[in-house]
Amino acid sequence: MTRTLYDLCGRDERLRFSPYCWRVRMALAHKGLAYDTVAWRFEDKQALAFADYDKVPVLCDNEQVITDSFDIMCYLDKTYPEAPLLGEGASYQRVLFFKYFVERSVTPALFRLVAMDLLAAIHPDDRDYFRKTREARFGTRLETLHNPEQARQQLATLLAPVRDLLRSSPFLDGNAPSGADYLLFGSLMWAYTVSLETLGEENTLVDEWFKRMLSVHDGIAGRAFTIRDLS
Amino acid sequence: MTRTLYDLCGRDERLRFSPYCWRVRMALAHKGLAYDTVAWRFEDKQALAFADYDKVPVLCDNEQVITDSFDIMCYLDKTYPEAPLLGEGASYQRVLFFKYFVERSVTPALFRLVAMDLLAAIHPDDRDYFRKTREARFGTRLETLHNPEQARQQLATLLAPVRDLLRSSPFLDGNAPSGADYLLFGSLMWAYTVSLETLGEENTLVDEWFKRMLSVHDGIAGRAFTIRDLS
Repeated sequence: MTRTLYDLCGRDERLRFSPYCWRVRMALAHKGLAYDTVAWRFEDKQALAFADYDKVPVLCDNEQVITDSFDIMCYLDKTYPEAPLLGEGASYQRVLFFKYFVERSVTPALFRLVAMDLLAAIHPDDRDYFRKTREARFGTRLETLHNPEQARQQLATLLAPVRDLLRSSPFLDGNAPSGADYLLFGSLMWAYTVSLETLGEENTLVDEWFKRMLSVHDGIAGRAFTIRDLS
Repeated sequence: MTRTLYDLCGRDERLRFSPYCWRVRMALAHKGLAYDTVAWRFEDKQALAFADYDKVPVLCDNEQVITDSFDIMCYLDKTYPEAPLLGEGASYQRVLFFKYFVERSVTPALFRLVAMDLLAAIHPDDRDYFRKTREARFGTRLETLHNPEQARQQLATLLAPVRDLLRSSPFLDGNAPSGADYLLFGSLMWAYTVSLETLGEENTLVDEWFKRMLSVHDGIAGRAFTIRDLS
């Protein structure tokens, strides 16, 4: 039995910051599944040729090769049905909405918070690729995008419904974390891993939840190597 | 057995536009429960004294008096558990997030789309109250808030995750409408009932879903009296 996660790394191989890989790491921990990781870099397309895919996460679960973080979460629920991450029916639809909310609204705002820190955290050989693809996506220079103050203002507004939810439960999905928690956590962990920027005072409730998330599942996220560990 | 919904009405008593009352009307239809309505106006606080509440919806289900649209949805699920609206556990948490998303993000943007149309639809005796409370809430004049073009731009961005979801299912909650659909529908029905303003081209998918919602449950929403029926 082998289980391997191809995981994005930065200028130090221990620096693992992909929001999509973090979703999967937390999902695997949620299911109690052990795995090894293979450090991967953006320019390493050849290493993923076997999966017919050009990005991480890629999960190899014995003979199975699964790509895309949300598809991996679906696969884990199907293959290891105990402790569902996403659920079925309306529950699944609602967490699918939440995934889109995180990707469409929260992640772009976080990108503006840490864009230049991300660039600095990335392996030097990957930086041209990173700049080119992200500047094409946002239609502007990374230096212009990077605007922590504006990002914090955006996040104060955007995360209001998350704060509302956290007023009545310790985790987004209730008394214990599950799929929705991991989807949002992935993006916040991405920012936290590469940057010292904070979410701002208005998001204190979100910060407190983030700290709880760092400590769940034996603190796998809290023990992760971050920019704070680099000199 | 009597079941009565206190429902906000406008300058014509048949004009019923409250987003929160529409949630409840759809939820009652979802459960297949018959009810009468009592037309209520903002200044009619005395009529709700029995409920110790100053707003609608108020639902009287025999001896039970329930206030607040989401609490009414919870009550309906508990009392009439067939065809759950909200669900339990993670499913409930996720639709609670969606409620906050609708109230924090979508509804304020819709308000900017139809603010002056709303004022015109409201009973003349209610207009001072409406203007005073809403201008205090938003911190500016209704005439300044009302900005359909800007509202459409906001809605194009805000509703992106809703459009993403509608690309893979006809309703937000899946193949049939449920709690999440009614939460968003209430707010869009509010705008539709009082105004001819449209959501804009970018939200065609949302428009198509809205039309489907007008036709579900024997078309109770599609048959509603709107500003189009007033001369």
